[in-house]
Amino acid sequence: MQRVAPEPQEFDRVLSSMCTEPHPVAREAATRFFATNPGDPATYQEVAALEARAVDALGDIAGLPDPHGYIASGGTEANIQAVRAARNLARESGGRPSKTDSPVVVAPESVHFSFQKAADVLDVELRTVPVDEEFRADLGAVEAAVDDDTILVVGVAGTTEYGRVDPIPELAAIAHDHGAQLHVDAAWGGFYLPFTTHQWNFTHADVDTMTIDPHKVGQAVVPAGGLLARDRTTLDALAVDTPYLESTSQATLTGTRSGAGVASAAAVLDELWPDGYRQNFESSMADAEWLAAALDSRGFDVVDPELPLVAARIPDDLFDALRAADWRISRTASGELRIVCMPHVTRETLRAFVADIDTLV
Amino acid sequence: MQRVAPEPQEFDRVLSSMCTEPHPVAREAATRFFATNPGDPATYQEVAALEARAVDALGDIAGLPDPHGYIASGGTEANIQAVRAARNLARESGGRPSKTDSPVVVAPESVHFSFQKAADVLDVELRTVPVDEEFRADLGAVEAAVDDDTILVVGVAGTTEYGRVDPIPELAAIAHDHGAQLHVDAAWGGFYLPFTTHQWNFTHADVDTMTIDPHKVGQAVVPAGGLLARDRTTLDALAVDTPYLESTSQATLTGTRSGAGVASAAAVLDELWPDGYRQNFESSMADAEWLAAALDSRGFDVVDPELPLVAARIPDDLFDALRAADWRISRTASGELRIVCMPHVTRETLRAFVADIDTLV
Repeated sequence: MQRVAPEPQEFDRVLSSMCTEPHPVAREAATRFFATNPGDPATYQEVAALEARAVDALGDIAGLPDPHGYIASGGTEANIQAVRAARNLARESGGRPSKTDSPVVVAPESVHFSFQKAADVLDVELRTVPVDEEFRADLGAVEAAVDDDTILVVGVAGTTEYGRVDPIPELAAIAHDHGAQLHVDAAWGGFYLPFTTHQWNFTHADVDTMTIDPHKVGQAVVPAGGLLARDRTTLDALAVDTPYLESTSQATLTGTRSGAGVASAAAVLDELWPDGYRQNFESSMADAEWLAAALDSRGFDVVDPELPLVAARIPDDLFDALRAADWRISRTASGELRIVCMPHVTRETLRAFVADIDTLV
Repeated sequence: MQRVAPEPQEFDRVLSSMCTEPHPVAREAATRFFATNPGDPATYQEVAALEARAVDALGDIAGLPDPHGYIASGGTEANIQAVRAARNLARESGGRPSKTDSPVVVAPESVHFSFQKAADVLDVELRTVPVDEEFRADLGAVEAAVDDDTILVVGVAGTTEYGRVDPIPELAAIAHDHGAQLHVDAAWGGFYLPFTTHQWNFTHADVDTMTIDPHKVGQAVVPAGGLLARDRTTLDALAVDTPYLESTSQATLTGTRSGAGVASAAAVLDELWPDGYRQNFESSMADAEWLAAALDSRGFDVVDPELPLVAARIPDDLFDALRAADWRISRTASGELRIVCMPHVTRETLRAFVADIDTLV
């Protein structure tokens, strides 16, 4: 028996996730392309074409007219691959020995933990620097940390904990002054930022690579992360020969891939960019501002949201009681409550959350 | 409008793939768990429990009573992670410097290209050795290639090109004599081999890690690869701290993961192991033997199948004509036609294929 209706109770109380319920057109496309493998594009040509469309749409969003890239398993893969490409390119270019013998990635400490994973996997050093009082990369600290052994500087466009946007153009300048690449992690933020005045993408700055995930705010089905690159050489640096597939090389980290994820990304980007995503941003931002005001008026210290993510300091026992009341919530590293206002998070849900806070306090 | 029926024309003529149409119970489970993320097990507890069940079932199949492991994005991730674990364990154990400075993986040349990818990603050397006339790892050549810098020896249980099974117990002995781990790549073969007399798994030999993919012969939905490990230390060597999730560390290569793949693996393993998989093996093996006989009787040189995979030398123009007639076929590195008799490949399909050969010749 096939049960295709979503499980509404699954999402209602999830306030901690940067993923969300897939959009109906995403779900429908995923179901149709379940049994296809974009990792074998010569055999599965229809889904290969959909991937090209999805990458073009991501290029539109990210200000990159002629994008290179692919739909990845997720933001973690995209981040790992960006570091891998930078590492491999530094070796190919026969640059300073330190870039090849002891390659370093410089990133703000707000960077997603997938960069720790990338450093372990790829045998590179991750050098993190403090953020400023606005929770953004401290340019002076980054400048001091970047030197001749740096292969990549990372800027985050929509940080995991506070939803902040790093000074991307300045970071790009620092990176290129030292022969390093600039990667922007817009895994979550990328689907909001086009509707703000932030300077974050390939048009605003000399960005080399970007992570931007359809399966987060984009509302595609998991797995659908996104890796974009300005230059073809990035993907070439990732390519491994494939002797038995009909195509000759493969740049992805995984082999067999999900046609469902790729097709859903193409479908939902087609459906929601730009107007649907704009409406989503405006609605979620309003919800975040409402929640911030509601918490502030109750005397909690709130980090004012710049994107639809609210952090606030609440007592530990209140946090624990909210979890016991079945709210899926998480904390920042400093211990603040962290609420992500994803598309499935409604004003009604937030009112119920605040009502529970009032009851428990 | 939701179209949930499979696209029958999608698979009929695909004779080159080691993936197949998902089983109906796999598809149904996938649809129900579309919007869950096993990468966040504390939030998505139901799918986390399904993953544990799937891993236990894979342990049953692979002769490992108390399995450690997880459902991966695919066999490529499982293979990369096996190499990564061996590399990291060699460093932790403070072994001979050469295992840490210049780690080597020894594998037969029949090994899947994901090991080339792993070598690039993880900065290890892949040393391949010739196979014998039976297309199996040549033990003498492996013995000669393994030395103090070797961290991992790979044996394949169901090779990509000829469906052969390497001498796993002997490879394990060679590996352990040199302080190296033994990894078995049973990504494809693992769902057939329990119904044969081959010695390939954790009970038959001193195997450390194994790749075994539900989304190949297992008929789960992509993505659902499988990594199994005898010891907990393998997963510990892969673990990265996760500061903002409710759980504290993550051993997978990807971050956010597909609940659809995991749930489908649990459902189909529950449904088909062992009887459904046994029937599938017997039926596919009979088809492969029929095809081998049909090609042999027409004067083509055939590599007798040991598992449901047939290779045969046919003229290049016949190969090209068959592709032009819309058969999705592939070649071995030596240029032979290679036909994989997956669950979706029926006797009727193979009769039509042979009939086309007769027409074109």
